[in-house]
Amino acid sequence: MPKVDWIIEELVTANRILAREGIVDSFGHISSRHPDNPQHYLLSRARAPERIEAADIMEFALDGTPVDPQGRAPYLERFIHGALYEARPDVMSVVHHHSESVIPFGATGMKIKPIFHMGASIGHEVPVWDSHDQFGDTSLLVTDMAMGRDLAKSMTSSPTALMRGHGATVVGRNVRHAVYVSIYLEVNARLQKEAMAMGNVKFLHPGEVDKVRERTGAYGINRAWENWCGRAGREMQPEQT
Amino acid sequence: MPKVDWIIEELVTANRILAREGIVDSFGHISSRHPDNPQHYLLSRARAPERIEAADIMEFALDGTPVDPQGRAPYLERFIHGALYEARPDVMSVVHHHSESVIPFGATGMKIKPIFHMGASIGHEVPVWDSHDQFGDTSLLVTDMAMGRDLAKSMTSSPTALMRGHGATVVGRNVRHAVYVSIYLEVNARLQKEAMAMGNVKFLHPGEVDKVRERTGAYGINRAWENWCGRAGREMQPEQT
Amino acid sequence: MPKVDWIIEELVTANRILAREGIVDSFGHISSRHPDNPQHYLLSRARAPERIEAADIMEFALDGTPVDPQGRAPYLERFIHGALYEARPDVMSVVHHHSESVIPFGATGMKIKPIFHMGASIGHEVPVWDSHDQFGDTSLLVTDMAMGRDLAKSMTSSPTALMRGHGATVVGRNVRHAVYVSIYLEVNARLQKEAMAMGNVKFLHPGEVDKVRERTGAYGINRAWENWCGRAGREMQPEQT
Amino acid sequence: MPKVDWIIEELVTANRILAREGIVDSFGHISSRHPDNPQHYLLSRARAPERIEAADIMEFALDGTPVDPQGRAPYLERFIHGALYEARPDVMSVVHHHSESVIPFGATGMKIKPIFHMGASIGHEVPVWDSHDQFGDTSLLVTDMAMGRDLAKSMTSSPTALMRGHGATVVGRNVRHAVYVSIYLEVNARLQKEAMAMGNVKFLHPGEVDKVRERTGAYGINRAWENWCGRAGREMQPEQT
Repeated sequence: MPKVDWIIEELVTANRILAREGIVDSFGHISSRHPDNPQHYLLSRARAPERIEAADIMEFALDGTPVDPQGRAPYLERFIHGALYEARPDVMSVVHHHSESVIPFGATGMKIKPIFHMGASIGHEVPVWDSHDQFGDTSLLVTDMAMGRDLAKSMTSSPTALMRGHGATVVGRNVRHAVYVSIYLEVNARLQKEAMAMGNVKFLHPGEVDKVRERTGAYGINRAWENWCGRAGREMQPEQT
Repeated sequence: MPKVDWIIEELVTANRILAREGIVDSFGHISSRHPDNPQHYLLSRARAPERIEAADIMEFALDGTPVDPQGRAPYLERFIHGALYEARPDVMSVVHHHSESVIPFGATGMKIKPIFHMGASIGHEVPVWDSHDQFGDTSLLVTDMAMGRDLAKSMTSSPTALMRGHGATVVGRNVRHAVYVSIYLEVNARLQKEAMAMGNVKFLHPGEVDKVRERTGAYGINRAWENWCGRAGREMQPEQT
Repeated sequence: MPKVDWIIEELVTANRILAREGIVDSFGHISSRHPDNPQHYLLSRARAPERIEAADIMEFALDGTPVDPQGRAPYLERFIHGALYEARPDVMSVVHHHSESVIPFGATGMKIKPIFHMGASIGHEVPVWDSHDQFGDTSLLVTDMAMGRDLAKSMTSSPTALMRGHGATVVGRNVRHAVYVSIYLEVNARLQKEAMAMGNVKFLHPGEVDKVRERTGAYGINRAWENWCGRAGREMQPEQT
Repeated sequence: MPKVDWIIEELVTANRILAREGIVDSFGHISSRHPDNPQHYLLSRARAPERIEAADIMEFALDGTPVDPQGRAPYLERFIHGALYEARPDVMSVVHHHSESVIPFGATGMKIKPIFHMGASIGHEVPVWDSHDQFGDTSLLVTDMAMGRDLAKSMTSSPTALMRGHGATVVGRNVRHAVYVSIYLEVNARLQKEAMAMGNVKFLHPGEVDKVRERTGAYGINRAWENWCGRAGREMQPEQT
């Protein structure tokens, strides 16, 4: 199977998983950098993740111009994806979502930090980006490259960022990794919120975060991926790298 | 398909969606203004939303008189619907529900305000109506036009109102819009409750609320509607306007 | 259908509903007074509610003696049921459960009171019974008539009681009513807990509680019952009174 | 059926139940001491519990060496299991998991204690083990016998232990018992967290904990097991002892 077709199937699966695991509702999206052209990326047309099929996946230039739209309407916020691929060559997949437990952190400015080993993949501390600082009163949507680039600046060294009054953006070294970080960002935020209500929280030691992150690879991610595929009613594809 | 038949199908779907998404349990209801007669509205007989079929949808005059009951028992609280259609010509659909996260706000008098962009459709601040102020000790049910009109007065400029010790009422410019506002009222209340327990909450700036509301239209609502239809096991109908 | 067979089917349905709606897990039970002999009651053998079938329903004398056990093992706590039928001729059905939101109230001594109209059926305030007061260190199970009678004394004028470190007991004027009260006891407790964390709670006015309770009858309960039957995969039987 | 085959089926069922009841997500595992060789144990290859089949169950020596791997990759943390079987001859089954409600207790040092009778099987108070005390910055995984033995020391007289920043370990006198304790550890933690937010908690009296634990046996555990099997889509096997 050509790599691009393989990645389109991965994206369909990723959308279904993000919906099944409660990271996205009818909104939110995941993209992959194009495997044959690093200046392009693949992203669904504007559709709810739980409904997406292979024919919905479109190709975009980094500035958000669709390559062959065939009448398909794109997401208004595709600029999040292009801006991150532009700023960070290490990034191969981007997720934007409004998962519920992260919103209260963005709204209060409390910092999300790893509270258990599964949360270490979010990084040492999740930065919060506020669109109002640079752009004032907007619909909060990232609807052009200027906003996308400002968001990307907040996560030059972070795999995750919260967006005040909006949601979160997560990047990964491939589609499976970006889904994995997105899911455990939500779980970590939920557990941290509970722990904060209970007393003083011992977060992971910084050295522990580093040790976990060094170890996080296909061994663990594919175990979860197989499970999430089953729960979402999708076949797990053999890995292509 | 005649517009009235199309709207009856929309109402059946809307009831199933409200049940599937946890906005109503065995109680609560959604109506539409009659497309051919703005002095009438369409609303199910007294039945749990998850069970409603097309044959359950009845027609009522604004004062709550059924047009052709055929032995079907109406909801006691249908006066909520008639009073809002009477007071507000812009309103084309009304939802009344007891979704769980709104009850504690009504009971404590804490005000619900948009905490993220998806919540902006509830308006700048959700008013709270207390039936006890005018009507004293009642069963809390809105069982006549006097109570309905008093409730409607509390929401002359608001798409939403809480009812102390009871639930909420939501209006929309069509059935899909009223469902959309109802669902995100619940989500916003849930997230606001979590954020309030965590620290000082930065709600959306008033200008942000206005910008989001200007933008909220078929593009976003139909994306959610397609998804909610799929989750509720219903076909999405092509739009009729 | 003989009334006893009808009630056995009601009990099977009630068990499945209590499981489906999260009021019982693998433990907890519901009984009915015997329709032909008020000194007897009907209750399943010791089995998880979600699994119960008609052949599991046994007949007991009020003191807990099985009439025709056929090798079936009874619940250890059947004395809750007998003691309440003995003490209260108005009671036709009894539920004992450990639904999650009531446990923290029993453990802290905070009183559950109706926070919304659907909660009024629990009574003005739910008493808390502590087995330790009379019986000291036990397994907390109500394993004889002495314990059952002590519990029944705490609810001479109440449809509900919490049991510290254990769960709750609910009575009704028929099976459907007892299920209805059990479900809204759980919902009310959950909402009250959230509201208490938010600020000062305006509970229903006592006169409102009375008005709602006067009105709670087949009109509302059967609407919920039809819905709960559908959700639990059971046919709703025509009512027999 | 040979006892070893019977136990392999029990383990498959146990994995599915732990997933269905929310005790494990894609990670976590359960083992059984080998019925014919107390120096060996049975544990799945590295796979998500919800996916495990009989062919995944491997045999290990207590030091973690696989007997006949057939190319199957083992869990990195199998040393938890071996260390507990080594230290405690009474232990016949071990569960390691990250169930959500226990994490905040491990992270804050608040002690879990039985809040209701179903929680008594966790013991009088759940100890917290912190890998950092002896091993400094690690990935928090128990990846050798030294770490496993240190963990086992924290639970010489306890059926349960929390692991700071990681999860919990639970032991039982057979597979069903270990699952039962794991599930009610989660429920107890969830209820205790709610109660602590509400006021002063009356935990079970120590004598009550002892009375419940004396009584907890096949009568109650098999009732739950039958139910959990049904919910997980597995046949309940006749007991072999």
